Amino acid sequence: MFTPRPIGFVRSPYKDTAEVPKGLGAKHEAEGTLEILPEFELGLTDIEGISHLFVLWEFDRAPGCELLGTPPCDDRPHGVFATRSPYRPNPIGLTVVELLRREGSRLHVRGVDMLDGTPILDLKPYLSGVPEEKLRRGWLAEAEARKSK
Amino acid sequence: MFTPRPIGFVRSPYKDTAEVPKGLGAKHEAEGTLEILPEFELGLTDIEGISHLFVLWEFDRAPGCELLGTPPCDDRPHGVFATRSPYRPNPIGLTVVELLRREGSRLHVRGVDMLDGTPILDLKPYLSGVPEEKLRRGWLAEAEARKSK
Repeated sequence: MFTPRPIGFVRSPYKDTAEVPKGLGAKHEAEGTLEILPEFELGLTDIEGISHLFVLWEFDRAPGCELLGTPPCDDRPHGVFATRSPYRPNPIGLTVVELLRREGSRLHVRGVDMLDGTPILDLKPYLSGVPEEKLRRGWLAEAEARKSK
Repeated sequence: MFTPRPIGFVRSPYKDTAEVPKGLGAKHEAEGTLEILPEFELGLTDIEGISHLFVLWEFDRAPGCELLGTPPCDDRPHGVFATRSPYRPNPIGLTVVELLRREGSRLHVRGVDMLDGTPILDLKPYLSGVPEEKLRRGWLAEAEARKSK
C-alpha cells in the first residue's frame, strides 16, 4: 500500500480531545485553518468556489484499534465501522467543513472537530448528499430515542 | 504516520477505469460487495441498521500524483483538491454507498465506483448531509452550465 504523508496541518481551538463536542446533538461550529504545505498549494486551484469540503486526516493521537467500543452518545457497544470512534484499523478521520475563505495555502473553515496540529491527508469537494428521507441511522437513532424518553 | 492496511476488498463489476461512469451526470447505481477480512468482522457489529456508508479505499492502480489536472467533465484544469482525481498525494478514494444487506463479513451495497479488487481502508456511517441550499459546487457548476448551452 501507499505511504501516507501530510499535505498540511489543522489549526484548531482544540488542544485536547476532552474539548471537542461529542455525542448526541454535538454541533461543530468551531472555526479553524487548514494550513496546506507550500509544495501542495497548486492542488488548491479553484477550491475557493466550493462551499463544503471533505477533510481526510490522521487520528495521530489515538493509540491502537478497538473493533467494538461504546461511544460517548450511548451506553452500549457498537462495531467501529458503525461509529466514528478514533480507534480504527486505519486511523483516518473524515470531517465535512465549510470553506469560509482562502488565503494562499491557508483555508479558513468552519466545522473543525480535529485537534490542533492534526495532519491532513486529503481534501475533496463535497458535491452532494443523500436525501434525508432515504437515510437511516441505525443504532444512533435508537440511542437518541432512548435518551429522549 | 500510520501504515495503511486493507480491512477488505471491493467486489465490483468494473475491471477497468474506462468502464466506470464518469463526468457530468454520471450515476453510480452499480451493485457490488465489500468483503471485509474475517479479523475485522467484529467491527461490523450493528452496521446493518445504517442505510448509507462512507467507504474509504485505496486508488491502488493510480500511478503518481498530479496537482493540476483536467477532469473528464471539463476542458479546463483544476487543482487536485477541488476534484476527485485519482492522482492524489495520498491515493485515498471516498465513496458513499447504500447498504443493501449484510451477510456475515460481506456487505452488499449499491453505488460502487471502485474497480474490482480495490483495497478498503475504512467504513464509517454516513449520518447527515449539507442542506442543498447551502451547497456551492464551484467550477463543476460552471462546467455544467457551459455544457448545457
